[in-house]
Amino acid sequence: MIATDALLTDLYQLTMLQGYYAQHMEGSAVFELFVRRLPACRGFLVAAGLEQAIDYLQNLQFTSAELEWLQGTGFFKTEFLQWLENFRFTGDVHALPEGSVFFPNEPILRVTAPIAEAQFVESRLINILHFQTLIASKAARSVLLAPDKKLVEFGFRRAHGGEAGLLAARASYLSGFSGTATVAAGRHFGIPVFGTMAHSFIQAHLNESEAFEHFALANPGNVVLLIDTYDTEAGAQKVVELAPKLAALGIPIKGVRLDSGDLAAHARRVRAILDAAGLTDATIFASGNIDEYSLEQLILEHAPIDGFGIGTHLDTSEDAPYLDCAYKLQEYAGMPRRKRSEGKATWPGTKQVYRRFDVDGKLAGDTVTLADASCEGKPLLKAIMQEGKLVEPLPALEQSRAYAKEQLSRVPDGLRVLKHASVYPVHFSPELRELTERMDIDAELR
Amino acid sequence: MIATDALLTDLYQLTMLQGYYAQHMEGSAVFELFVRRLPACRGFLVAAGLEQAIDYLQNLQFTSAELEWLQGTGFFKTEFLQWLENFRFTGDVHALPEGSVFFPNEPILRVTAPIAEAQFVESRLINILHFQTLIASKAARSVLLAPDKKLVEFGFRRAHGGEAGLLAARASYLSGFSGTATVAAGRHFGIPVFGTMAHSFIQAHLNESEAFEHFALANPGNVVLLIDTYDTEAGAQKVVELAPKLAALGIPIKGVRLDSGDLAAHARRVRAILDAAGLTDATIFASGNIDEYSLEQLILEHAPIDGFGIGTHLDTSEDAPYLDCAYKLQEYAGMPRRKRSEGKATWPGTKQVYRRFDVDGKLAGDTVTLADASCEGKPLLKAIMQEGKLVEPLPALEQSRAYAKEQLSRVPDGLRVLKHASVYPVHFSPELRELTERMDIDAELR
Repeated sequence: MIATDALLTDLYQLTMLQGYYAQHMEGSAVFELFVRRLPACRGFLVAAGLEQAIDYLQNLQFTSAELEWLQGTGFFKTEFLQWLENFRFTGDVHALPEGSVFFPNEPILRVTAPIAEAQFVESRLINILHFQTLIASKAARSVLLAPDKKLVEFGFRRAHGGEAGLLAARASYLSGFSGTATVAAGRHFGIPVFGTMAHSFIQAHLNESEAFEHFALANPGNVVLLIDTYDTEAGAQKVVELAPKLAALGIPIKGVRLDSGDLAAHARRVRAILDAAGLTDATIFASGNIDEYSLEQLILEHAPIDGFGIGTHLDTSEDAPYLDCAYKLQEYAGMPRRKRSEGKATWPGTKQVYRRFDVDGKLAGDTVTLADASCEGKPLLKAIMQEGKLVEPLPALEQSRAYAKEQLSRVPDGLRVLKHASVYPVHFSPELRELTERMDIDAELR
Repeated sequence: MIATDALLTDLYQLTMLQGYYAQHMEGSAVFELFVRRLPACRGFLVAAGLEQAIDYLQNLQFTSAELEWLQGTGFFKTEFLQWLENFRFTGDVHALPEGSVFFPNEPILRVTAPIAEAQFVESRLINILHFQTLIASKAARSVLLAPDKKLVEFGFRRAHGGEAGLLAARASYLSGFSGTATVAAGRHFGIPVFGTMAHSFIQAHLNESEAFEHFALANPGNVVLLIDTYDTEAGAQKVVELAPKLAALGIPIKGVRLDSGDLAAHARRVRAILDAAGLTDATIFASGNIDEYSLEQLILEHAPIDGFGIGTHLDTSEDAPYLDCAYKLQEYAGMPRRKRSEGKATWPGTKQVYRRFDVDGKLAGDTVTLADASCEGKPLLKAIMQEGKLVEPLPALEQSRAYAKEQLSRVPDGLRVLKHASVYPVHFSPELRELTERMDIDAELR
């Protein structure tokens, strides 16, 4: 379902590979993937997408049809394309487990491999890890605000393509959502799927009561009725009127859905209507342009809403539609490397991140240092692949979801706020600073 | 490459279908896809994605594995799932040709089909058409600003998944971009592909000069050198020093790329360095967080830049990451239908859009009316499919691109500005207003 095609990459990866190939540059390279800075409206990030990234690495190879097409572009020599026939990923990967909370300048993935391999996989690795991390990070904000509400990912239609819809469902479930409306995500990732009816179902009937009844008869185990097509409170009244008839058939009304207007006000009135009729078990589910900002407001207002469908704003990460992430060469042939471009300089060398916790188990500070340096704290990057093979099976999505829950429980209050979060302390070790300075001096002398 | 899986949909489509099936609701439904309102920073939109939407409709069917999985969810009766085995799209489609300029409340696609079919395809049709329209509309802004520059889509890595990367390449090419960096988009859509090297290629070498030479020897027809890894002007100087050696080998330096810092200032200095060495044919290509806003600034400053790589901001439509679009039931079993939800009420009935032009051929005003009403102007929706078959072959991407160019040439100046565009007049005909009022009165009486 998630494509592993080798040509899902930038052309420059292949022209660079042609350069490495021509010069017999086969040394080992270390690339690290990290986020340069947080969007203004994020206090922390949640790593996601490793399973798909590893799947990509394990399946990477060029088909003969792809190589034939590349030949036709005129960019490549035949000998180089023949070499690509046997191109596979044979390197090592270290990474943060999915669900890990992390911060700027901390590598979340490190690839160590012959330079052509480590180089080539850049585009699709970023593409996979960036998007799921973006969505898991956004989803976590709603989960922390409303841990006891049912949150359902609702955004497939306005996600950026089919793959984005699937991966948004996965990433938000990882961060603690209860499920998704997207059927294929249910099938491929084992995520619980939710859904009942759209306005069109109501409109296709002569009146709402008939539509509600028809739906209930056809879907007796899943009766959540959409009541805002014409008038929300009148819709709730029709649900109440229908309830005894359905009850006589043994069909319970599980709930109603609101999708427009002042959700808190409607929910209060609808709750009263349902309760007055004894439908106290029927839940109220709300949708319609909800994001963590409106969710926070609804929770502050104590709106009697049991669950939320969160769609477009989640799947597009509307308030921060991308992360400033990069995948950079940090070492080649045993020597650390440093990019010094204005505003985009990197910390050189192969790195590890160590984390400290306070007495309550909350995150207290991280240190980025060289992988072979010693440091106080818990090391975050784990060995995932060695010589192209998994070190151990990746955790199942449910396990990663449990890990994300544990990680989110450790996020300090100052980082949980929706805006103007405090800045988490990420230190750079003396060893790393010293290496960086030494490289700059060497570069000046060269 | 672009998935047509039937389960790329919302669960509620299937639960509704189970309801239609149980009640033998087989009447013809008309659904229309439209955008409710423009994002604040858009003056117009460009329709895109029809080819993939039609491909989806033509290939829609459930596999036995999918049906088996659905059975396991417990939501569906066996008889209904058996009926789904033969489920195909057999309806009619009317649509704006790809590349059409359009405005809020104008249907860009109309589906007329037995209600189950017309209903079911909602989620994926929106998913496909929304995203490409979003990107084509964003890309058109840069094309109108810089019609003589080479604009290349550069955003695969931060596009929201692989499909988004491919479709962003297609949509931006449709709107007039010169090509893409994404290899798979080149292969699948026949779009020109561009790319040379990343900073890592430079860093993997002991110095820039060696990296430049190695790249040129391996890619003699495609020598565009990235010069900002350490110091941009020093990089340009190294290009100049290398040029005679390459010239002696018959290898021309096509250009250089800048990727950081003050692009206008660097471009001026680099242009002077190149020109002073006689490299007047070498072009300057710039990238790095460019969007139409920074592009406008660079053009106002007359920065000597020949082409631009536009990535993240384009592929995520950063300033407007979604469109408020909807696919709504407008007619069922011969009767118009209207949703009246607060803030989301629809114009009922099967509609057509007519466009008028001023003496210069620029867009002068549109009227939305009922499909069977007569109206002044040029009708915009065309018959695309009839009874599940194409009325005529869809235009090739190059033809649609030419059409988009013609359409963009007709956009009035007031709509081309990046912010605070004027509001284009879209009228609703007396027939449509009358129908809407009549339906509201009927609803009150019912």
